[in-house]
Amino acid sequence: MNRRDFNRLCAKAAILGITGTTGVFDNSYAKEMRQFWRIDNSRPIFPVREGESKKRIAFLLFDGVTSQDFIGPATVLSRSLFDVQFVAKDLNPVFDDNGLGLMPTSTFSEMRNIDILCVPGTANPYIQIQKKEMVEWVEFIGNRASWVTSVCTGSFILGAAGLLKGYKASSHWTMIDDLAYFGAIPTHERVVIDRNRITGGGVTSGIDFGLTLLSILKGENVAKSIQLAMEYDPHPPFNSGSPKVVRSEYAQAERARFYGWLEKVTPERLNILESIAKRLKIDIKD
Amino acid sequence: MNRRDFNRLCAKAAILGITGTTGVFDNSYAKEMRQFWRIDNSRPIFPVREGESKKRIAFLLFDGVTSQDFIGPATVLSRSLFDVQFVAKDLNPVFDDNGLGLMPTSTFSEMRNIDILCVPGTANPYIQIQKKEMVEWVEFIGNRASWVTSVCTGSFILGAAGLLKGYKASSHWTMIDDLAYFGAIPTHERVVIDRNRITGGGVTSGIDFGLTLLSILKGENVAKSIQLAMEYDPHPPFNSGSPKVVRSEYAQAERARFYGWLEKVTPERLNILESIAKRLKIDIKD
Repeated sequence: MNRRDFNRLCAKAAILGITGTTGVFDNSYAKEMRQFWRIDNSRPIFPVREGESKKRIAFLLFDGVTSQDFIGPATVLSRSLFDVQFVAKDLNPVFDDNGLGLMPTSTFSEMRNIDILCVPGTANPYIQIQKKEMVEWVEFIGNRASWVTSVCTGSFILGAAGLLKGYKASSHWTMIDDLAYFGAIPTHERVVIDRNRITGGGVTSGIDFGLTLLSILKGENVAKSIQLAMEYDPHPPFNSGSPKVVRSEYAQAERARFYGWLEKVTPERLNILESIAKRLKIDIKD
Repeated sequence: MNRRDFNRLCAKAAILGITGTTGVFDNSYAKEMRQFWRIDNSRPIFPVREGESKKRIAFLLFDGVTSQDFIGPATVLSRSLFDVQFVAKDLNPVFDDNGLGLMPTSTFSEMRNIDILCVPGTANPYIQIQKKEMVEWVEFIGNRASWVTSVCTGSFILGAAGLLKGYKASSHWTMIDDLAYFGAIPTHERVVIDRNRITGGGVTSGIDFGLTLLSILKGENVAKSIQLAMEYDPHPPFNSGSPKVVRSEYAQAERARFYGWLEKVTPERLNILESIAKRLKIDIKD
């Protein structure tokens, strides 16, 4: 399916009335269902402290998103006084890279006031950073949020929105060097904090990122309790989760395989990056 | 909202035509969207080996599911020759315990043939094990699958379906002892393998479980490569992810807090367990 067929499919779906902000997802069913599970089946939350209010965290959703990137931090944060929102262009379901359909809770035009922005990643960020409406919303809301965060290649979208200029930032290890096109300082760490920017490395780093953010916002005791509730005592069956711990030739080969695929599906990758660098007035030296 | 209001809400949604197997989710939109992302934006998959075919793994979905439990293994497995299905009672969206709506890909009546069953958990399994239609499907399909697996309190649903009688099994640490009501042998490990049953501990154990299963089915090299692709080199900010590593009084207090909440929302908890034990002819001794 090419982009034109894809657009036609979306238009067809909109005609059928199953999508769009005026479509069926704009009714109360979804909201009431959410309410039901929050009231009767939610995990115990921590009591509000004197003068403390709920903070709103918005996770960006888009077709092709890697769900593990945001489900980790959402699971960490939703249990303790956060208003968790899943924000997309409209209320149509988006499809993650497992083929799972996800229902956004709010749209770019509705969501104009948040405390924390978190942008998850995707296998091919070079497609996502060309989405003008999405990048513009990220820029708008990121400039107003107290915390601007990402997991995996979500940092590409923050970067394309001009939010990482002069900031140290992490990303998926295979692509992290491309962050320089956005004026960021690629930093190969699992969780990188630079002023109010927090960026995580690839995919599973979202859980470490979420607990780090929680401890900053609610204190270590709350974070430790949530870590115990999520039984986060990882025992990976192998020691191969980072280019730092595997043989460098192996990491190089895996990275080359990944880039080979990216070049096949996005041959204009470098043009896209250079065009964004120009717009952001970033001087790229080789 | 009580159960009657909830049922009314579902009926209302069905009348509006937004739900039900004959409703809008039964059209080709979702399937075509999934196809689109598999073709144009999926991660590189491992080539089919001589004589090898795709294995089908079905994750059970239900309202109140903990998404982290199944997104971990789904992310591990969807990149390498698995047909990943998300199966529910019908094609209505289900809502996870973050309030996120998820769209099933198949239903109990459609899905009668799988290789691997994986049942994720929930904060309150005592509600789920009473769902007759769901437990009956799990029993039917579990008796035909090559592998019968769960993450977190998903093992309660396997247990209620009679699939853990005489098997060692894990679950969320706060509730694991209740597995005895299903004739299982509660085993406090992160991933427990007993013949063709694999059960994980709480929530985040799903990633370790997924990699373990992948290495059994596709070999260590594939599992190691996926671990690197997911950058699974965890660095939890604290050492509090298991009752084995925290002070025992602290773990006891956290467990008591959790049970207090469960007893409040499911006061009939013990009756439910005893009634299932009786149906499964399990003799419970104190």
